[in-house]
Amino acid sequence: MGQQGEFKVTPWTVEGLVDYEKLMRDFGTEPLTPQLKDRFVRLAGEDHLLIRRGIFFSHRDLDRVLDDYEAGRGFFLYTGRGPSGPMTLGHIIPFYFTKWLQDRFRCNVYIELTDDEKFLEESRNLTIEDVRKWSFENALDIAAVGFNPDRTFIFQDMEYVRNMYPMVLKIAKKVNFSWVRAVFGFDMSTNIGMIFYPAFQICVTFFEKRRCLIPAAIDQDPYWRIQRDIAESFGYYKTAAIHCKFLPPLTGPSGKMSASQPESAIYLNEDEKSIRRKIFQAFSGGQPTVEEHRRLGGNPDVDVPYQWLHFFFEEDDEKLRRIREEYSSGRMLSGEIKEILVEKVTGFLEKHNTRREDAREKLSLMKYEGRLAKEMWSKTIE
Amino acid sequence: MGQQGEFKVTPWTVEGLVDYEKLMRDFGTEPLTPQLKDRFVRLAGEDHLLIRRGIFFSHRDLDRVLDDYEAGRGFFLYTGRGPSGPMTLGHIIPFYFTKWLQDRFRCNVYIELTDDEKFLEESRNLTIEDVRKWSFENALDIAAVGFNPDRTFIFQDMEYVRNMYPMVLKIAKKVNFSWVRAVFGFDMSTNIGMIFYPAFQICVTFFEKRRCLIPAAIDQDPYWRIQRDIAESFGYYKTAAIHCKFLPPLTGPSGKMSASQPESAIYLNEDEKSIRRKIFQAFSGGQPTVEEHRRLGGNPDVDVPYQWLHFFFEEDDEKLRRIREEYSSGRMLSGEIKEILVEKVTGFLEKHNTRREDAREKLSLMKYEGRLAKEMWSKTIE
Repeated sequence: MGQQGEFKVTPWTVEGLVDYEKLMRDFGTEPLTPQLKDRFVRLAGEDHLLIRRGIFFSHRDLDRVLDDYEAGRGFFLYTGRGPSGPMTLGHIIPFYFTKWLQDRFRCNVYIELTDDEKFLEESRNLTIEDVRKWSFENALDIAAVGFNPDRTFIFQDMEYVRNMYPMVLKIAKKVNFSWVRAVFGFDMSTNIGMIFYPAFQICVTFFEKRRCLIPAAIDQDPYWRIQRDIAESFGYYKTAAIHCKFLPPLTGPSGKMSASQPESAIYLNEDEKSIRRKIFQAFSGGQPTVEEHRRLGGNPDVDVPYQWLHFFFEEDDEKLRRIREEYSSGRMLSGEIKEILVEKVTGFLEKHNTRREDAREKLSLMKYEGRLAKEMWSKTIE
Repeated sequence: MGQQGEFKVTPWTVEGLVDYEKLMRDFGTEPLTPQLKDRFVRLAGEDHLLIRRGIFFSHRDLDRVLDDYEAGRGFFLYTGRGPSGPMTLGHIIPFYFTKWLQDRFRCNVYIELTDDEKFLEESRNLTIEDVRKWSFENALDIAAVGFNPDRTFIFQDMEYVRNMYPMVLKIAKKVNFSWVRAVFGFDMSTNIGMIFYPAFQICVTFFEKRRCLIPAAIDQDPYWRIQRDIAESFGYYKTAAIHCKFLPPLTGPSGKMSASQPESAIYLNEDEKSIRRKIFQAFSGGQPTVEEHRRLGGNPDVDVPYQWLHFFFEEDDEKLRRIREEYSSGRMLSGEIKEILVEKVTGFLEKHNTRREDAREKLSLMKYEGRLAKEMWSKTIE
């Protein structure tokens, strides 16, 4: 890798232009190689654009997950959401991938709403009522993704805590302050709730005695490093993970979309007018004037609208290739590429929000009444 | 105070000969003055030997508790037990005092079994199953004390956690690592569970919007210092406390009775033979030979059997005075004073254990079915 600017990735901040190669080395994760992708796609029975396009780019023990699958031992999926505000496109995409994994591998999915964590984060200034409200709102969006209601358990830490607490204590007893300081950068001024919280996020990997696979953005990986150091002492598997990149913010290729910077993100409940306005203001790789653009062409590698099409919104590789060509050559203008993205995003959100309307009943299955949820409420993790 | 040896008092250790005057100064608590005692006894409507004899010797805001009582605002009582093993006489005495307070002031009592804390204490090496078992056994002893089943709530943190968790989080958010390090001596190697735990112990002081009075040994006071610094920011009262001394260990006047040093303590389920053996081996203020004892007399101020009679077991002040006189003058031998104590202790434990036999039903009222317990299970503390 050449010289790079400074960047920072923790579970609570993503700053700067992320060098994903360096992150893999720093975190000690493995690249998703072409061979492993092939095996994965073969076992899944179909391809997924987030794999094909390298958006999921890194992993831990994905090969072992596939071994377990082939050997009939199976595995389970775990992902989560910090209910600190309305969800954005960047938040929901990994859930669509997780649903695809559930469908292809027929496995249980556990979705943790970390209401405790979001309350404890001091910079957010949220009340208990706020995180409860966002837990409900976010859970509806997650239910709208279409998970199998009998194989999915959505829970809030504040509600499910009694069932998890013995295992949470076992984890907490194995982890001391120096360790969380080294992994998360905690210091003397960190509140004691935040210091304890990692035990909650780790606990879910012990919901079954099978291997856990976590599809999530790479900023969550520090938790899994601790998990992997202690799991076997409890007779559980080290968790596996498959890591994705961050959907670039509309404001430019650095950092990640943030619900607290409204201009950087598109919310799931945003109307077409506002979507159009934000996309038309997005960071562009085009030239300042039409004349220059026709002559020099646009740069798709920094153009956020193009990046979004690449990341998720243009599923057809051939169409994407043509857009890239047209844009680079100057035949396609920035306004035109933005128009394509507006159409894709509004189409996606229209379908999402229609399903969200009907998701209340499904959500109550995933939280309380479905097969897996009932089983989870009747047991204690320890 | 004159020169004193080193001593150490924390919620987890009591070492050396405790200088209670110095402890009051270090902790910043107030002495229980004769005037305050008089007012307390007048409002209680009767005297109690633990007050009269100065076993409860220090307090925080007891005067305000009495103001609240007189003004009709009332108050509630909170005490607890770390379920790490069988209970000793030293553990149960404050519960008898708490029951007396409940009877005299007709108030609610909350009794926290800190199963989480005892699991997390690494030196104890207890499993989740161990602390569950001891929670049940200890709760039976506590129920045997005779609390009012409709005004008493006995709970284990691991069971009641869901109802407490929002308030626990609010507390945890206000307390950082430097603070618990300064108050409890935590360091880099302290596990993250122990670091978080103080929020649980503090939470109970917020179970009602009235003033809380905590009758407990003074080693628990550090928690209340933190509570008093944050309570008003939540719109709650600073907790009040009334502090007792430690029943001296049989092995000598230093430290406190410890269930983990069997010779230092008498367990509630111990048989007469074993009680007799331990008391006869106890640290004595008598002289090495009968002749010398008759000539020089015994020293009741270091004699553990005499101290136990003074602490709790000889209720009659006049009888106690005579024992002191006889023993000091040499007319009463060490064996005789020990015989008196054996009789008192076995009589006390016989009554206690008879009540324990019948306490199962009462315990289930205090835990789940009684008026206060039902109310507590139906609400969330926040």
